[in-house]
Formats: sequence, structure tokens, C-alpha cells
Amino acid sequence: MPGTSPEASENRPAVARRALLTGGAAGVGTLLGLGAGLGIPALRDRGTPQAGPPGGVDPSPEADRSSGIGGELPGFGGEALPCHGAHQAGVTTTPPAAHARYVSYRLRPETDRDGIRRMLRILTGDVEGLASGTGPLADPEPELAARPARLTVTVGVGPGLVDRVDPLKRPEWLAPLPPFSRDRLSGQHDGGDLLVLLQADDPLPIAHAARMLARDLASFAEPLWTQQGFRQARGAEAGGTTMRNLMGQVDGTVNPSPADEDFDGLVWIGGAPEDASRDGRGGAGAWLEGGTALVLRRIRMELDTWDQVDRPGREQTIGRRLDTGAPLTGGDEHTPVDYEARNALGLTVIPSFAHVRRAHSEDPDERIFRRAVNYDDGAESGLLFACYQRNPLRQFVPIQRRLDELDLLNEWVTHTGSAVFAILPGFEPGETLGAALLE
Amino acid sequence: MPGTSPEASENRPAVARRALLTGGAAGVGTLLGLGAGLGIPALRDRGTPQAGPPGGVDPSPEADRSSGIGGELPGFGGEALPCHGAHQAGVTTTPPAAHARYVSYRLRPETDRDGIRRMLRILTGDVEGLASGTGPLADPEPELAARPARLTVTVGVGPGLVDRVDPLKRPEWLAPLPPFSRDRLSGQHDGGDLLVLLQADDPLPIAHAARMLARDLASFAEPLWTQQGFRQARGAEAGGTTMRNLMGQVDGTVNPSPADEDFDGLVWIGGAPEDASRDGRGGAGAWLEGGTALVLRRIRMELDTWDQVDRPGREQTIGRRLDTGAPLTGGDEHTPVDYEARNALGLTVIPSFAHVRRAHSEDPDERIFRRAVNYDDGAESGLLFACYQRNPLRQFVPIQRRLDELDLLNEWVTHTGSAVFAILPGFEPGETLGAALLE
Repeated sequence: MPGTSPEASENRPAVARRALLTGGAAGVGTLLGLGAGLGIPALRDRGTPQAGPPGGVDPSPEADRSSGIGGELPGFGGEALPCHGAHQAGVTTTPPAAHARYVSYRLRPETDRDGIRRMLRILTGDVEGLASGTGPLADPEPELAARPARLTVTVGVGPGLVDRVDPLKRPEWLAPLPPFSRDRLSGQHDGGDLLVLLQADDPLPIAHAARMLARDLASFAEPLWTQQGFRQARGAEAGGTTMRNLMGQVDGTVNPSPADEDFDGLVWIGGAPEDASRDGRGGAGAWLEGGTALVLRRIRMELDTWDQVDRPGREQTIGRRLDTGAPLTGGDEHTPVDYEARNALGLTVIPSFAHVRRAHSEDPDERIFRRAVNYDDGAESGLLFACYQRNPLRQFVPIQRRLDELDLLNEWVTHTGSAVFAILPGFEPGETLGAALLE
Repeated sequence: MPGTSPEASENRPAVARRALLTGGAAGVGTLLGLGAGLGIPALRDRGTPQAGPPGGVDPSPEADRSSGIGGELPGFGGEALPCHGAHQAGVTTTPPAAHARYVSYRLRPETDRDGIRRMLRILTGDVEGLASGTGPLADPEPELAARPARLTVTVGVGPGLVDRVDPLKRPEWLAPLPPFSRDRLSGQHDGGDLLVLLQADDPLPIAHAARMLARDLASFAEPLWTQQGFRQARGAEAGGTTMRNLMGQVDGTVNPSPADEDFDGLVWIGGAPEDASRDGRGGAGAWLEGGTALVLRRIRMELDTWDQVDRPGREQTIGRRLDTGAPLTGGDEHTPVDYEARNALGLTVIPSFAHVRRAHSEDPDERIFRRAVNYDDGAESGLLFACYQRNPLRQFVPIQRRLDELDLLNEWVTHTGSAVFAILPGFEPGETLGAALLE
């Protein structure tokens, strides 16, 4: 860690160049040496990062003082979430962070198995430094890292990375999704070899973390695409309602909860017999025990034409009320949909091709854990639909096949980007992300 | 306003098309008629928008209960700021909102003086509806408008719009800025006929408001560019420090305060003799009394090479400490810079070409009111530098000339976008934005 003597900085040359981090002991040594000259007394003034319980809700008094505006008490910026554990942070973090950034990288041609090992070692240190608020090694702007605002950094690997290590270790599902007839993939937001998912309640630490990771990954991989999204700002909540998407719909009501008994079996890869075999070759998924499969879909919304549909039309399209998110068959947001209920004419209240009906499956294993954020880059807006599951071929794909075939909502949504990543298992202090892949 | 009978919606056809708002009484009537069918009981449940004092700090108990996460009390989303007054909201709003979106429009060729009048009338109603949380007329997603989170909508006009009304009414400064030698304008973020600046503490109401405005402006103007930026999230503050930019610098320390005695004379166009004359033609600025001049510059940061400079080098480049923002000549962030102080070698402590020295003017009239936000779209990051003043040619331009000529910071910043807008005077209930321009 950098020293804390503010005077040290006075004796340094005006503009010195610093070696870029290229991995390897020599580089790290140089950086530590330079780091000793950094004087960062401001860091001593910041609120000590608070490690919340696994659920992510910070019970400290600080959390109750975060009303913020104009106040002199430290806000939530100082809150830090633990990055260690059986699973990576950022998948089930509750409540979900207000801002998310997905950054996909392509490995450089020369990054071989050893390079991947070095890359994951550096990435592990960066995740630890960024999540805790101390910043990664030789962070040139430690002040931007010091208030992580519940920053999580979640790392996933794509098919190309696993193939470069050992094609036999690649699970069948770790591949581009089978094509859907309505897909209009632009090629701008598809796939990649490495995913870094940054989430926090403040966009500033995300921007800084993304830059630090890009710096440290630069010799191993190059950025392929970035997608940014948001939920309602932290502290703005009305309380009790699920996120709204830009169509105005309550989005994500029916979703397994990490507290559910069957959640682990749906979401976390557990080394179950079916995980351990792939085409009879065996063991393809063992290195992923504690990880999960992420499907990320960029869903463009045709809001101009959606706005021309009246409210009853929209509610029938979805099968839920727009105001409360309750099913058209009654109750509140969390009341189960009654797919059999009929109106006076004998027709089902939920139309045959309503979104909720087409997305619903009678098979309890055909469920996914959703984490969507809105995106709006000025030119285009929609939903970055993310879901986690043990096996996309058995969970996301059958659901999406039904929607792709028939869904009233299809007139106003278009899937323009698609990616599948294996989210690496969690790690403990002293361990390295993805170590089991490289064993 | 829409009715509140939820049952009314049950009797409407499944998917009806609605006439788009094209202005004029017939269109408005149709929309009101349709609006009566909207059932929005959720709106009755939301926290009543709180009108804060002009300073923008909401003193209501609600503001003190916004610690949010997991809580059941309503957060700050329900806070609304007044949009009426001598000046438009969003210029001096304190504290500045966490998120900002600048949207520039180009008038359609057929939008004449009468069209501009109709457009400004519709815009006025939209500003009122969006700021208060009731939403604009016939808002198809009133739930997305209901929690404005201190949303302000600030309207400015560009040279082309004023020329279309009356070229004699265009002040000399309402024109593209004179070129600077280091400008590298991409052409993607320059100028425009109409500016809508949206600011709020939550990106969701901004996204919704931008869409509603685009809908209502569609028949008069087409979007030219959008730029989005952020400050630290509301509630994340450490308290007491000015915003940091993505270079890690405290940004905006020396800034006139609306509480300063000379603020009005620096920022608000006041019908002073010099405002009332332009090239001897007289009265060019009278319609702008209570307005101000906005200069918006997109400043790309070369963060990769900036990261290679050590801390002392960066501090000398700026003339301030990176940690506290204090001048290198001592004190805290708000201590005045001592430009004469010398070190043991007899050299000035603040280098001759340090950013603070080159930006500083001995002429007290050569000051601007800055409001910058960070931007980071994944591909590029930097600062959306906005400043307000009575006359850019006498305030921003001489400062920028000095910086353009010599500034150590120039190696790492590039101006890639530039725009000047006349921010319209404020308006009272029953009045129309920009009415004086069209008299």
C-alpha cells in the first residue's frame, strides 16, 4: 500500500513516466516502489468501509444517516461489500445496485494459458482492492476508489477463453445461444472472451474501476464492447415496488429469491452429476462449482410505437396492470397469475399470447434468476436483460423459444445483442479467481 | 388530467392507436379525451411532491427519511423542485443534481415563427408537468413521471432559432464560439437550435422526460445530439468536498456562488445598457432579461497517458493537491491560491503554466459560473464542461484563449464538442417560456 507521508511528494520530478503494469514480479515491484511516494491523507478521512452481511443490507448506523444532501455526515459512498465467499459478489447482491456496466474483452492472440493465469491473478487483486475501497495496486487516483458505494466486480469467462485453456473443459452451454427467429443481433454487443460486470450505487467508482481494469488487462485483452444501465437511484425508492423498465412496466416480479429452498439448484453450478458430464466426456463443469451461467440480452424497446398503444392494450400485452404490476386476474404485484380465469365472454382474462403467459413454464426447473437494468444512450433505449442459471440450454433457451415464437410484446421489443458467460466460482482471501479452470 | 377510475380501462379496445401530439387545440382535445380513460391509482399512493425553497434543499421530513435501502419510507424520488420564477430552474439549483442530460435539437425546415411559438407553449406545459411529477399531457407512463427526484428541465435556444424569429434579436455572443487552436471538434456534439437540459438525482425520470419531450417536439424539431453525465450519486457524499472529475481532481472549487453580491451581474442577463445593444442595433438582448448564456464544451480526457504521470507531476499541472484540492501554496480546498509564493529555489510554487494560473484572471468580470459533469460512454470519457455567464465573448472566451495558448493540462484534455445557447428567462404560472422573444 502507498505510504501516507504527504511531504514525500514534494521531492519528486515534475512529470515522470511510470511503467505500465504488464504483469510479472518486476512490474509489480516497480509499481510498489513508486507507490511509496503517493501521499493520500484524504483516505484517512473517509468513512471506514462497512462490510455488510451476505444479503448486502448494511445494518451500520452509517446507512441510516445517508439522507445526504447538504448534510455533513458521510453518505453511503463509503460502504463496501465483501468480495470473498463461495460465490462471487454481484450476482445475488440485495438490493441490486443502482448502476451496472458490462465490459466484454477479447483475448489478445498471444495470451496463452500462462497469460490467462497471470491475468486472473491480477484481476483477483484488482477485485479485492476495488471492492474494499483501497483501490488496485498503484491506483493513480485512490480518491476515486475510496468510496466504492457497494461496488461489486463480477468476472465471467467466454467460450474462447475456456477453449484456449482446454476445450474439454467447456460446458456445452458455454457457446453463443442458438439463433432465435426474431433476433436482430447488431454484432456490436455480442459475446466475448472475458466479462467484467461492475455494479455500484454511484457511477463514479464504476467509471474509475472500469478504467483501472482496462489498464491492468491491457496487455492480455482488448475491450470488445461496453454496455451501461441503471435502475432507480438508491434512496429514491417509493419502497416495496419492483424496478420499472422504460416501458413503464414493473419488471422482474416473478423471480426466484436467494432465500428460496430451490434457489441454489436453479442458479449455482453445484457439481451435480449432470454438471460433471458433457457429451459423455465428463468433468466439463467441475471447475465451475460455485459459479453460474450468465445470459445477457440487449433488448431494444420500440417506445415510439409503444406510446401509441393505450393502457388497456399494454396491460393485455403483458398480462399485468401497469400501475401496480398486479396480474390482470387480481390481487397485488406478488399475487400469482391465474392463467385459467375467464371473463364474462368465456375468454381467458390473460390473453393466450400475453407476455406473462408465454414466459411462464409449468416446469419448475425452467426458471431463471433475472437481474435487468434499463439502458438509454440517447440514440436507443431498452433493457439489458441478464439472467443467471445453471444451464441456459435448459432454462433460458426454452423460455425464449416460446417468447420468440409468440408473444404480444414482440411488436415492441427486439433482441439486438447476446452473450453467454460462465461466471467464475467465488474465492477466498489468498485464492485466485478461476484457479480451478487452470488446474 | 387523467381520471382516476381504474374500471374505465376495462372497456377499451385491446390495442388502439392514439393520435400523436402535433400541437393545436384539436390534438390536445383528443388527447384529453383519451386521457380520461387512464386509470392511475398508483399516483394517489405516491409521496406528494415537495416544493423546496429556491436553494433547492428540501426541508421536509421526507428528505430526512431518504436513507432508503430496504426501508419502507418513501425516498427522495418524490421530491419536486419549483420550475417557476425569475430564472429557469436547473442553472443554480443547489446542490447540483447527480445526473444531467443535454439534448440538442435542429428545427425542421417548416417550423416558422408560429411553429416556434406553438413549440414553446407545448414545451412550457411539459416542463411544468415533468418538474411537478404529474407528467406532461397524455403521458403514457405517468408512473415514470411520478417521482421526479428534483428533476429540472432547462430550455435554451441556439442562433438558428433566434434568426428564424428575428435576426436583429440575436445577441452577438449567440453564435458558435471563435475557434481555438487546440479544438478538435468532431462535429458530433456541436451547436443546435434548441437545447433541453434535464437534471435529476435519478436517471429514470430523466430518461422518461427526454422521451416525452422528444415525442412532443417531434413535429417541430429533430434530435441532433445527446450527451449524458454524472456527478457523485446523491447520498454517497463524503460531505464538504467539491465534485471530483475522472482525472481524480477536485473540480469547480473557485466558482461564484449564487449567494455572492456580484453573482447576478456575472450570470444573469439583466437588461443592463450593454445587454441592450448589439452592433448599435439596440435591444438584441432585452428578451433575454432573466436568462443567461450557456457554453457547453465536451472535453475528452486522455486518461491512459494521464495515468502515467506521477502525483507530483499532476499536482504541478493543476496547481492543486489531488487529495484535498488545496492549492500547492497551502491551506485547504477553499484557501485562495497564492500566485506569488516562491520556493527555496526562488521559483513560483504554482508553475507559470499550471492550469489554475492560466485559468485565473485579475479582471473580476472575467468569471463564469461552472457546472460540470463527468461523462463516460465506455469508448471515451471526460468532462461535460458547462458554464453560465452574461456574455461568453467577455467571460468564457478570454479564459479559454489563455488556456488554449498555454496550459500544462492541455496534453491530457481535448475539446471535441462546443455549443452556445441562450437559456431563456424564467416564467411564472400562466406564462410561456420565451414569450418575450416572440413579442
